[in-house]
Amino acid sequence: MSKIQIDKAYISKIEEAIENMDLDFLRTTLNNLHPADIAELLDEVAMDDAKHLYHLLEDNELAAEVMLELEDDVREKFLKALSSKEIAEQVIENLDSDDAADILSELSEEKMAEVMSHIEDAELAYDIAQLMAYGEDTAGALMATELVQVNVAWTVTRAVREMRKQGEELDDIYTVYVVDDEEKLLGSLSLKRLFFSTASMRSTISELYDAKDLTSVTPDTDAEEVVSIMKKYDLVVLAVVDDSGHLLGRITIDDVVDYMQEEAERDYNMASGISEKVESDDSLWRLTRARLPWLLIGLMGGVLVSQVIAMYEEQLSLDPKLAFFIPLIAAMGGNVGVQSSAIVVQGLANNTVDVRNIFQRLIKEMGVALLNGLVCSLILLAFNLITHTSPALSYTVSISLFCVIVNAGVLGTFIPLTLNRFKVDPALATGPFITTMNDLLGLFIYFYIGQLMYGL
Amino acid sequence: MSKIQIDKAYISKIEEAIENMDLDFLRTTLNNLHPADIAELLDEVAMDDAKHLYHLLEDNELAAEVMLELEDDVREKFLKALSSKEIAEQVIENLDSDDAADILSELSEEKMAEVMSHIEDAELAYDIAQLMAYGEDTAGALMATELVQVNVAWTVTRAVREMRKQGEELDDIYTVYVVDDEEKLLGSLSLKRLFFSTASMRSTISELYDAKDLTSVTPDTDAEEVVSIMKKYDLVVLAVVDDSGHLLGRITIDDVVDYMQEEAERDYNMASGISEKVESDDSLWRLTRARLPWLLIGLMGGVLVSQVIAMYEEQLSLDPKLAFFIPLIAAMGGNVGVQSSAIVVQGLANNTVDVRNIFQRLIKEMGVALLNGLVCSLILLAFNLITHTSPALSYTVSISLFCVIVNAGVLGTFIPLTLNRFKVDPALATGPFITTMNDLLGLFIYFYIGQLMYGL
Repeated sequence: MSKIQIDKAYISKIEEAIENMDLDFLRTTLNNLHPADIAELLDEVAMDDAKHLYHLLEDNELAAEVMLELEDDVREKFLKALSSKEIAEQVIENLDSDDAADILSELSEEKMAEVMSHIEDAELAYDIAQLMAYGEDTAGALMATELVQVNVAWTVTRAVREMRKQGEELDDIYTVYVVDDEEKLLGSLSLKRLFFSTASMRSTISELYDAKDLTSVTPDTDAEEVVSIMKKYDLVVLAVVDDSGHLLGRITIDDVVDYMQEEAERDYNMASGISEKVESDDSLWRLTRARLPWLLIGLMGGVLVSQVIAMYEEQLSLDPKLAFFIPLIAAMGGNVGVQSSAIVVQGLANNTVDVRNIFQRLIKEMGVALLNGLVCSLILLAFNLITHTSPALSYTVSISLFCVIVNAGVLGTFIPLTLNRFKVDPALATGPFITTMNDLLGLFIYFYIGQLMYGL
Repeated sequence: MSKIQIDKAYISKIEEAIENMDLDFLRTTLNNLHPADIAELLDEVAMDDAKHLYHLLEDNELAAEVMLELEDDVREKFLKALSSKEIAEQVIENLDSDDAADILSELSEEKMAEVMSHIEDAELAYDIAQLMAYGEDTAGALMATELVQVNVAWTVTRAVREMRKQGEELDDIYTVYVVDDEEKLLGSLSLKRLFFSTASMRSTISELYDAKDLTSVTPDTDAEEVVSIMKKYDLVVLAVVDDSGHLLGRITIDDVVDYMQEEAERDYNMASGISEKVESDDSLWRLTRARLPWLLIGLMGGVLVSQVIAMYEEQLSLDPKLAFFIPLIAAMGGNVGVQSSAIVVQGLANNTVDVRNIFQRLIKEMGVALLNGLVCSLILLAFNLITHTSPALSYTVSISLFCVIVNAGVLGTFIPLTLNRFKVDPALATGPFITTMNDLLGLFIYFYIGQLMYGL
């Protein structure tokens, strides 16, 4: 499989060949490409052309891999065009269990059941059903059941023979798992160790493997913990065992990389007020739909804020200059709130925040906020006094700026920690949500202090 | 090396043993831990205890690995306590070339040169110097020179013998590179393939390896492209060659995972107004320093905005109600701006944005903004008219909201694309920067339209 750059020139060459019905050229070209490249090509050409090209794939396994690599919306259309029987036989049966489960979970309940009933390989059907039962964002959802395992009592000769059989369907083998007669995981053996071992072919696996060099998780382990374990120990593969230690499957780094990227994008989107996975070349409608909900929340917040200010209309008529600093107060509250919650959200994602010490963290955040608040409000006070803003307004702005910064810092820390404690995604606290709330509270504080300062 | 959970109980047990000078226990425990766990332990205990524990490590290679895994600030202190000769002999010479280069680049120019002069392994010194010359965020900066390569003309017997020699210093081998007599890369061979091959030991490598199954990059390839290639083809390792195809080194997935995470954090921090890498358990001072610069930018923006509003003081005295909607206009401009720039920044990071089509992208963004703007301003108009806000104010708010949303959408797309074109990190455009600019422009628009509406 050659890997090539799918650029505009390449795509036009293919489109030309489709137009000229140059099937020989297309068939030869396509069937020699890497599935990821074929998928990229199909993503780019018109849907009819894509379906046409897909039917030229000669190898079922290649076609299944291509299906897996397609963009979600393109795959959806492809799957709709196939019968349940075709999906089972052409796609599902040619994929690893974890990828098969991923594709099945994209189908409707009804179609999923139909496809499952058409899977002929009973063991695969069982594995897939098991995998689909694991909760989202758990080790179980990331793992595949295909792996290479040897019994600790086997000789090297027998182990190699069995490995050859088991490894046939695997793209590559990174680790060989060593189990006892009850299939309990005892340890692992790298191919390097087995290959370079100077032990005789008649020695047993028990003399070769390293029982201590083993890390495993259970299927209900949080996906984020899986990421942090694999990152910490630089693992390429991680074993999954049940509560009694029986080997269930293994998680490979490529799936973890995909998970990491999705998580990072989700957090980033939340912080930016985008509610679903979008790419800048998505349709106008999809882009709008992903953004409008947050804007409506912001709009509602803005209306609420207008009601808060309305309560102080009288004060505003007395000194319209009070209005000058409304955006400053609102913006600073928002900025501090986003900073604080972003630090907590990242800390929770990296497991560096100790959730038991919420109180301690709030104290520290308050320290940071006090420092930042002091610096900002003193600078602003100096500026205002120098530019002959009235003392009443100058003090009102600086005192409330200080209060707003401290308040936003504490709320920005407290809210994501609280959401997390109640098992809600803490990233919800970032973005438009926290900005709007800080606008509201900030302007309350501002006008309240103004009232005190002007002696109303 | 056992892997364990470094929790509070474990840390206290170690601290107790330090207090009781239970050296035997400490030595046995430490030297049996995984370096990543030892580093985590040293990060957690007091600095004096950490240095004490570090000296109990018996194996130089283990000690070097621990040094590598320490947190940046802890490692800085450790390195300061060691002489240049000690760093060279104990740390650098026991690490892979890429890790050695990373640690060296953390030293001052002067100390770096000293350490380099103490490296006895001339080949390693040469490799490190080469690696350090590659630009940041390139394939060269991510690669290591340690790898296993075999000549295409060798017999399997000879290849295995040579691989054993070369592989001794490597933790694990994923791929064996096949080169010609001039060390030009021809292809690769997985250990699985070699291991399971039924070819005789006297057949040559040329009969076994796959020339087509090869992807490589040059050292000046952008790190983001490295990430996207490894993700696309699910690679665990990627070869680096020079312009004439000579094999220089290889990039492993663990380094790419670290790079991805750092990049995602940097973008997220930019969007949240945090200027350097911080963790929530960093010192008060460090946390403040990372956040204050952005707050000062926000403060300056706020002062500028106050000057804009001041220009319209007369209008505000005529209808103080105009002030009610200042935060709404400012917030909506900010929200739309952040959304638009976030989509562009992510698209650039994932290579899904075609930078040649800036104009096309702006047209599309304008479409999204027109839709969102229309929905939001009509809803607001309805609300205001129903709640008996004066028609002049109602129309002022809705018309300017519409203009602000369109304007913010276009700017939010245009600015990161322009920054990127001038090789500035487009993520700079997100966060407080874009919010502040949209506040300014938004309120200009608001009061200008107000002036027209009120017929001033």
